[in-house]
Amino acid sequence: MHYQAPLQDIEFVLYELLGGAKLNQLPRFTEVTPNLVMAIISEGGKLCEQELFPCYAEGDRVGCLYDPSDQSVKTPPGFRQAYQRYVTAGWNGVTLDEAYGGQALPHLVGFVMEELSCATNLAFSAYPGLTGGAINCISAHASETLKQQYLPPMAEGKWSGTMCLTEPQCGTDLGLIKTKAIPFNNNDQFRITGTKIWITSGEHDLTDNIIHLVLAKLPDAPEGTKGISLFLVPKLLPDGSRNGVSCGGVEHKMGLNGSATCVMNFEDAVGWLVGPPNGGLRCMFTMMNNARLMVGLQGLGLAETAYQTALTFAKERLQSRAVTGAKFPELPADPIIVHPDVRRMLLRQKVINEGNRALAYWVGAEIDISEYHPDKAERQQADDFIQLMTPVVKAFLTDEGSYCCNLALQTLGGAGYTKDWGIEQLVRDVRITRIYEGTNGIQALDLVSRKLPLHQGRLFAVLLTKINLLIKPYTDSPHLTQQQQAINLLKETTQWLAINGSKDPEQAVAVATPYLRLVALVCLGALWLKMAALADQQLQQDASQKNFYQAKIKSAHFFFSKILPEIEFLSTDIQSGKTSLMDFELDEF
Amino acid sequence: MHYQAPLQDIEFVLYELLGGAKLNQLPRFTEVTPNLVMAIISEGGKLCEQELFPCYAEGDRVGCLYDPSDQSVKTPPGFRQAYQRYVTAGWNGVTLDEAYGGQALPHLVGFVMEELSCATNLAFSAYPGLTGGAINCISAHASETLKQQYLPPMAEGKWSGTMCLTEPQCGTDLGLIKTKAIPFNNNDQFRITGTKIWITSGEHDLTDNIIHLVLAKLPDAPEGTKGISLFLVPKLLPDGSRNGVSCGGVEHKMGLNGSATCVMNFEDAVGWLVGPPNGGLRCMFTMMNNARLMVGLQGLGLAETAYQTALTFAKERLQSRAVTGAKFPELPADPIIVHPDVRRMLLRQKVINEGNRALAYWVGAEIDISEYHPDKAERQQADDFIQLMTPVVKAFLTDEGSYCCNLALQTLGGAGYTKDWGIEQLVRDVRITRIYEGTNGIQALDLVSRKLPLHQGRLFAVLLTKINLLIKPYTDSPHLTQQQQAINLLKETTQWLAINGSKDPEQAVAVATPYLRLVALVCLGALWLKMAALADQQLQQDASQKNFYQAKIKSAHFFFSKILPEIEFLSTDIQSGKTSLMDFELDEF
Repeated sequence: MHYQAPLQDIEFVLYELLGGAKLNQLPRFTEVTPNLVMAIISEGGKLCEQELFPCYAEGDRVGCLYDPSDQSVKTPPGFRQAYQRYVTAGWNGVTLDEAYGGQALPHLVGFVMEELSCATNLAFSAYPGLTGGAINCISAHASETLKQQYLPPMAEGKWSGTMCLTEPQCGTDLGLIKTKAIPFNNNDQFRITGTKIWITSGEHDLTDNIIHLVLAKLPDAPEGTKGISLFLVPKLLPDGSRNGVSCGGVEHKMGLNGSATCVMNFEDAVGWLVGPPNGGLRCMFTMMNNARLMVGLQGLGLAETAYQTALTFAKERLQSRAVTGAKFPELPADPIIVHPDVRRMLLRQKVINEGNRALAYWVGAEIDISEYHPDKAERQQADDFIQLMTPVVKAFLTDEGSYCCNLALQTLGGAGYTKDWGIEQLVRDVRITRIYEGTNGIQALDLVSRKLPLHQGRLFAVLLTKINLLIKPYTDSPHLTQQQQAINLLKETTQWLAINGSKDPEQAVAVATPYLRLVALVCLGALWLKMAALADQQLQQDASQKNFYQAKIKSAHFFFSKILPEIEFLSTDIQSGKTSLMDFELDEF
Repeated sequence: MHYQAPLQDIEFVLYELLGGAKLNQLPRFTEVTPNLVMAIISEGGKLCEQELFPCYAEGDRVGCLYDPSDQSVKTPPGFRQAYQRYVTAGWNGVTLDEAYGGQALPHLVGFVMEELSCATNLAFSAYPGLTGGAINCISAHASETLKQQYLPPMAEGKWSGTMCLTEPQCGTDLGLIKTKAIPFNNNDQFRITGTKIWITSGEHDLTDNIIHLVLAKLPDAPEGTKGISLFLVPKLLPDGSRNGVSCGGVEHKMGLNGSATCVMNFEDAVGWLVGPPNGGLRCMFTMMNNARLMVGLQGLGLAETAYQTALTFAKERLQSRAVTGAKFPELPADPIIVHPDVRRMLLRQKVINEGNRALAYWVGAEIDISEYHPDKAERQQADDFIQLMTPVVKAFLTDEGSYCCNLALQTLGGAGYTKDWGIEQLVRDVRITRIYEGTNGIQALDLVSRKLPLHQGRLFAVLLTKINLLIKPYTDSPHLTQQQQAINLLKETTQWLAINGSKDPEQAVAVATPYLRLVALVCLGALWLKMAALADQQLQQDASQKNFYQAKIKSAHFFFSKILPEIEFLSTDIQSGKTSLMDFELDEF
């Protein structure tokens, strides 16, 4: 595997495409200059390249070792050292308030670091990743006492966190949860009993304590999702004694072997309520929405590593001559990058990855605005946009991440299928991103059934405004007509969904998956149009980074020639509706 | 994993869709009645379900064990027993002439068995699979002496075979081969020296002897692919002594762990020439073309197992209620097969698999005609069709096989990512089928650069004739207009290719991949149109298999609504040509 943090492209997206995400306009971040942000990201990139990346492949080979005698889990070689370096650099609490031991940096910084850390070691990133989610959830919903008790050691990295949702009988449908919480000590504490499965980082040897956020049901709770509460359940109680939490084993998975996926048994474990009784799912969703964006970045990160590796191979491997005649007559054959079909595979990866980076950061840059902008309307608009785009980023970036890692493997041919180049690990590891934090099918349902109808379509109107703002200045773009047609197709299809979905909700959910994809591609079109136009302007002023900017212009051409045209197919699929799916009787499958 | 041989669908394709492939009209097979064929296939299916399937998952876990002390390879538990049952049933020599110990059955029977055996144990199938290829090659090209010496023990299963092509510096580009063959004993024998890699079944413990077919260069051979010869090199020489062939190790791969992928070292190994000097590549291609069709069936087979497993899961797993209200109010939740997005995933698999089976058998049924039809023109036409369609079947069935195994995994959500249900193994194992026997990119080049221009486009004309013959009787099909438009689009695109490719060959190779896909989809359209029409006729006469035939009609509807419309996208991609690929400079990637 080969990887260098793509700092030039990150800077281009953050500061040329997105204009610095207005960070300096936020009172909280007046001192967070572009130079400071890029210096921090650059240091983060080095940490990933030098500490996380070297133990990635061995982490896959060795995996997490479960010892039934003491129910402990040992992480792979190198993970403990990497973890120490990671938390010492302050990354665990990078966006947390200083009052709780954090660095109070913009979410955007943590957002970019997620791409880099997942690109270099997805399995490792699961440990601080879950802690980050738990920190967000505790910050937002726990009592001040719990915050002061738990946030500082978590920010410091001495303690880590988990999310405990899934049970054997329920994953997507959390209304079926059976884990029980019985109050005691005057309703101040609860005894939690139940079994949770697929708990990422549920048990490991990186930290002294593990703080579980557990969904459970109070006695006499309402049925279904309205009767779920959230509890903080530490592995070690405040007095240092062991709580009734234990790991029953680790899962054997297709990949992500360095990440411990645990069965967690809670037996009269002591916990504290987080958020209101029966309001647990709402609290968990604060955490989940952010986590879903992060999973999108995982798909992007792994695809970037896969692309860099495939590109290295394609420039080195000599096979056959270019169809138009030898390009390197001094060599026994030409490097395979001269062959059009190899370029087709490489460019698909490059153009999708760079487009997806622009898409993710476009959304991620709004997180700080939604939280810290002094103007309520601005905060609301940013939040609307994030709400709508979270399922799109999660599903599209992981579907494409998986597709592009497979294309990278294909670029290597037989060498890609062996373990030598590491791409097969990327293909196995990235595969989970389409599933966890809500399968991509669930993301599409969230988009179509919850986000689109919200506030009479206000979120979609925000998206259209933002898409039009992106392309507005570039009236002489060679891609303008095609992009405007794409926007019109998106409007027409959304209209079809609104009309048919309101008559029959099954019509909407039946075509949610291609609709989500259509939204993503039209957004990418606007972003590529602007990126090419900016590159064109830049080339007229300064030729020092000629290759980078010319590649942007050519990449946009590739996108509009060979990627965007898929939207016609998607629109046809969508407008054919549900009939061909729902006509099947159960015994006709 | 769940699997039952899809005998009803196989019979439908062979005897309703394809009319028995005219087998009875061939003098060689006058006694091979439909009942006999289905009885043999049914027995084969049982063997696969009962012997091959049970050792598939453990074969993945244990893998092939290489012992450096004696350079031996031990196959996984159960493989030796399964192999004995397999060869005792006569499958190794199923199509071989009786004179050499074969059963002289139609190729079509072996063809169908390839689907079933690969569906149940792809790793196991590699051992008899390579032997089958070697038998074909020796039958077609070796001297009578070699045939009499080697074919009977291979047909009996006492000996096995390999194909030794790839070397570290060359896979696709065989012109770069370095292995040398030095004649001795009056040019009757040769001493072979060189290293071959990725040799499937190169060493193992299933047979007493292993017969390698090795590409090597004679002294003073012309440069490139015109200077390659083919040699038969046994592990044990006729006198029982060990030849200079040894296994240097086995590869560690993403999957297919039960199949030994070996490094083979030849050091002054004694071999015999097969075919003419410097004519080795042509001989090997006889073997490869057949093997490529077989690899297509592997993609189909694994996708069938994945679908059956996903379907079982989707009927059992209870999550959430149908959007239109509870379908099974007596259960705590509805089975997930009620949800439209789950049906979208399942039906995509079902409809593609059944379509691909029809496509593969449509081509496979011509193999016997191309060999045994008394009329030369009929043989020629069948051969034209096979030639053109071999790369299409290989690439499309394995691309879709990989895609559909991934959809099956997705249907299971988190359960699919763990090793419990076995689908993740199918995803890993099927991945190699897009690579070996020529990557799918190479298949597309073969189609566009070799097969299309051959004999002034005669092969493509044969395909069009056969497509039109399929749909001709069904003038009131509801899909006729759409299918005719699809055929017109295929003609238009092929015309574009012919014009632009003759001006600039890079234009053709740059869009070969989407073009191959377009050809496959238009063929599937014709096959689905006919299958639905046949089902409709059948339902009017006999309602005893109502579910099966109604499903065919509904599947065709799904195909024309949600799969075929991709061709518009493919055509746009193709007609955008090479520019966006070839404009990139090497340092702009």
